[in-house]
Amino acid sequence: MQGNESLEARMIDSTIRAWKFNSDRIDKFFGALSPEQLEREIAPGRNRLIYLWGHISALNDGLFPLFGLGARLYPEMEAMFITSPDRAAGSIYSPEQLKAAWTHINEKLVAAFSGWSPVEWLEKHTAVSNDDFLVEPHRNRYTVVLSRNTHMAFHFGQAILAEPKDQNL
Amino acid sequence: MQGNESLEARMIDSTIRAWKFNSDRIDKFFGALSPEQLEREIAPGRNRLIYLWGHISALNDGLFPLFGLGARLYPEMEAMFITSPDRAAGSIYSPEQLKAAWTHINEKLVAAFSGWSPVEWLEKHTAVSNDDFLVEPHRNRYTVVLSRNTHMAFHFGQAILAEPKDQNL
Repeated sequence: MQGNESLEARMIDSTIRAWKFNSDRIDKFFGALSPEQLEREIAPGRNRLIYLWGHISALNDGLFPLFGLGARLYPEMEAMFITSPDRAAGSIYSPEQLKAAWTHINEKLVAAFSGWSPVEWLEKHTAVSNDDFLVEPHRNRYTVVLSRNTHMAFHFGQAILAEPKDQNL
Repeated sequence: MQGNESLEARMIDSTIRAWKFNSDRIDKFFGALSPEQLEREIAPGRNRLIYLWGHISALNDGLFPLFGLGARLYPEMEAMFITSPDRAAGSIYSPEQLKAAWTHINEKLVAAFSGWSPVEWLEKHTAVSNDDFLVEPHRNRYTVVLSRNTHMAFHFGQAILAEPKDQNL
């Protein structure tokens, strides 16, 4: 990415960097935890780490249909980690399954982000009609990626609370 | 913001919306709390809410010098909420002082964001040299705003843990 690229190409570069910053630290944090550590709660009575990892993954998996890129890769994660609160779903992925799903989803998303032209970044997402998009052109892929990126940070900020106190903030 | 604006103007619109989404919910959440509620910890032995609000505010205040917009508005907040952990600073702002500072900082930042041209958004920040910026053009204001926005979300995700359990996630 050089300084003589178009303004919009440089903004896209910043956006992909911001996404990778969050997805990389999530990958590193959760990927290093043992199955026992993934059972830790972020605070007494709150979500377990494995649930938060699954929740982030499942929300990101929903970007494929929202961006018109096809179906969710792991549709069963929706019931495990979005529509059910922690400990309510009958069964959830094992740490190994979750790690594989998270990795697959994120790699495929980053590949899509890296391949879109500026115009493709600003296309409408599939949850908005053509008519509504005419008056609300901000309901596009770019806006969704910025929002989903802060969603990852929101929950990662919670996840690190399960670590010893001197390792956060 | 209309669909026939330039691609970069539409990306900037998305970015300002993403910033306002986070700053609005932070404003609403902390602004509604009593002085007693601001003393709550996000988890046993962890940061108090008033400290997190100050931390977010102080980090954002640092954007003025980083963006070449002048000095910090509330330079004493750095020692209170960044370089000192919670309860370590001799004295910190009262809730009223903090609310006023947060509001002032955020309004002035949003005004700056709303006034920059696309080229101004992509200017280097002041912590990078001209030479380094030539080879690392992503070290610009736009990248910093995306990063600082996820910083707000990171800590807001922690802050809501001080609320009753059924009100988060």
